[in-house]
Amino acid sequence: MKTAVLITIGDEILSGNTVDTNSNFIATQLKEIGIKVLSIFTIPDEESAIVATLGRAFEMADVVFTTGGLGPTKDDITKKAYADFFEDEMIFSDEIYEHLRVYLEKRNRLWILEHNKDQAMVLSKAKIFLNYFGTAPCMMLEKNATYCFSLPGVPYEVKPLVKDQIIPFLKDKLSLDHIVTRIVSVVDVPESILSETIEEWELALPKYISLSYLPVGTRVKLRLTASGTSQELLNVELENEIRKLIPIIGENIIATHEDKIEKILGEILSDKKLTISVAESCTGGELAHLITSVSGSSSYFLGSVVTYATQKKIDFLNVNPKTVEEFTVVSEQVASEMAIGCQNLFKTDISVSTTGVAGPSKGEDGKDVGTVFYTIRIGNEEVTSKLFLPHLERLDFMNFVSQKVIQDIVSLLIKK
Amino acid sequence: MKTAVLITIGDEILSGNTVDTNSNFIATQLKEIGIKVLSIFTIPDEESAIVATLGRAFEMADVVFTTGGLGPTKDDITKKAYADFFEDEMIFSDEIYEHLRVYLEKRNRLWILEHNKDQAMVLSKAKIFLNYFGTAPCMMLEKNATYCFSLPGVPYEVKPLVKDQIIPFLKDKLSLDHIVTRIVSVVDVPESILSETIEEWELALPKYISLSYLPVGTRVKLRLTASGTSQELLNVELENEIRKLIPIIGENIIATHEDKIEKILGEILSDKKLTISVAESCTGGELAHLITSVSGSSSYFLGSVVTYATQKKIDFLNVNPKTVEEFTVVSEQVASEMAIGCQNLFKTDISVSTTGVAGPSKGEDGKDVGTVFYTIRIGNEEVTSKLFLPHLERLDFMNFVSQKVIQDIVSLLIKK
Repeated sequence: MKTAVLITIGDEILSGNTVDTNSNFIATQLKEIGIKVLSIFTIPDEESAIVATLGRAFEMADVVFTTGGLGPTKDDITKKAYADFFEDEMIFSDEIYEHLRVYLEKRNRLWILEHNKDQAMVLSKAKIFLNYFGTAPCMMLEKNATYCFSLPGVPYEVKPLVKDQIIPFLKDKLSLDHIVTRIVSVVDVPESILSETIEEWELALPKYISLSYLPVGTRVKLRLTASGTSQELLNVELENEIRKLIPIIGENIIATHEDKIEKILGEILSDKKLTISVAESCTGGELAHLITSVSGSSSYFLGSVVTYATQKKIDFLNVNPKTVEEFTVVSEQVASEMAIGCQNLFKTDISVSTTGVAGPSKGEDGKDVGTVFYTIRIGNEEVTSKLFLPHLERLDFMNFVSQKVIQDIVSLLIKK
Repeated sequence: MKTAVLITIGDEILSGNTVDTNSNFIATQLKEIGIKVLSIFTIPDEESAIVATLGRAFEMADVVFTTGGLGPTKDDITKKAYADFFEDEMIFSDEIYEHLRVYLEKRNRLWILEHNKDQAMVLSKAKIFLNYFGTAPCMMLEKNATYCFSLPGVPYEVKPLVKDQIIPFLKDKLSLDHIVTRIVSVVDVPESILSETIEEWELALPKYISLSYLPVGTRVKLRLTASGTSQELLNVELENEIRKLIPIIGENIIATHEDKIEKILGEILSDKKLTISVAESCTGGELAHLITSVSGSSSYFLGSVVTYATQKKIDFLNVNPKTVEEFTVVSEQVASEMAIGCQNLFKTDISVSTTGVAGPSKGEDGKDVGTVFYTIRIGNEEVTSKLFLPHLERLDFMNFVSQKVIQDIVSLLIKK
């Protein structure tokens, strides 16, 4: 199987200032065409480090990517390192300069053309992939049958370059194996029990199928990866293996194709032609955002409200002030009334509500940080649950709760 | 300065299935106590790769972290690699077993205790940091005056282990330099122009202060990092250097302390005692989520609505059906009416609205993917802007627009 090494260049990653999402995107794209990422090296903006790491990468893989360090500013020295490593010289490219001119002209920024002139300087041996969403082009250099791509660091620029130009280029140049992956989502079983329950099945898996356990919140994702020459055959084999799982843990399986829980929900809602609305407090919009992150969600997601202030819960969702007085705003009673109000407001088959304390400071009613009640209404039936997650930071709390709520909706709909 | 190397162990990262957020968190924590991360190595769940990478890391740094590969399942082999690299043997720890028992008992999961028994097996020479939010403890081993920590892979478990136990341990063991960082946010200047405008200032910076350019959307973050023995002195020095910037590009600076745009907004709203509400369409809750991600946002954020369906824009926000008919739902007129409706609904000083097409499929009114109009109302004044971002994927689009909207609110409030 063909292999790749990704090199992420940037002090901003090492300092924790920026999360590296480029590697994740590139790895996903490469996996789809059967190229396996062996390692990801994140290194500083230092010429010596870049040269040394390029050396190591070339010993390991068939394809090498670097991201970052191509901007017009002083802290960017990737190009110099490339010139050194590939023993090449910089030349001025009229093609790139012209492309840059048109690019800036379109954006009424022609006045900065001369300031970005250096972007037209590239290695003489490089094949160029033009950047249509930024000023730094991508250079490809070949050495001992290994292809090396220099990408910019901005994700918006990296994605189209990889997807539209580099992946097609690699498919054309390399004879590639197929890699097929399936994700089986299992709920309500701890990882350790699961691994024991399916041990026999796991040990019986053919050599070319590998299994990984990926716990996400209270869900365990079983990832099956198969590689070989015939994609159809791999798909059939994986399907067969997954079928064997059903009699063992079928009751706990909520999905066997889709990975993301919000997409699993989307498929079920579309199938069953059900609509959903959301009333959020402590999740502050994250739940709606998760649901709407799915393309096509507008067909089942009608809308949501974030009622942060208690008074808004009363005004919009018709929560009874007496209920708040008696049980406090973070209570199963208020969660339930929020869900009912939400369902009436949006006229949806399903409605969900969350009320809790994301922290780090305590709720107005003194409830402990990490407490949350949520109600799921399907038609006239409703289920209210409580979570207590004091160890989660604010953003992790919002995300964990949103994921769990969606997971519960999925479980409830499957049992119906 | 003391240095660290982070090793991320996990096929799920290399396959693109999971984004590595642990490294980012650990790097941020280490920077705060003056430990510089030299490299991050992401490698597969393979004993040989782990042993080899531990070897490289020990040649480079004073502190080494590994994350991942400690779970109870078959794909986790980090412990074996540790035993090999540190030439140590596994022993059964009654302390950990007892801790595990109590941990599971609290969660009514005592029945899985025996299945997790292996978690109590640790290296004989290891110092143990108990995991209060998961079953896998953290082992610390020392070799040639280098400290090595084996962390689990689950972020919820990593964060408290690092923050509450490992950081205090390192502060106690190592004599550390201070690292102080300041972020200056500059808007409406392209990176290339900015670097030229402030070139003299940049070249005049003292050796112990380093500068990085971090473009985020249409904002450029200037990161100044200073290291030395006296924190107070470093703070003073950085403040001085930043003061020198004001006469040069002061007009374009929107913040000199806070990094995240949503926090910058939060500080301004708190200072000016202003309230805000949000009416979202194409951003689907992301804008509200960004604003509420800031702790304490409940003091200025009163609430939001996501009106995905056009009818909901009419029902809740009092958008005029004629306006939709005449200008389509993705138009500056509808954006404006949404903002007015939102301000009336929540009775806030400021209201914001977004209406557009996140894609990948076209909007119901045939507007191009990537088109968005947004209105910012401050009191009775309002500004409506348009963005066209056809190259952004759905989630990037939602995030870019939300960031830009908040940035514009900040710019408007500063000019007031």
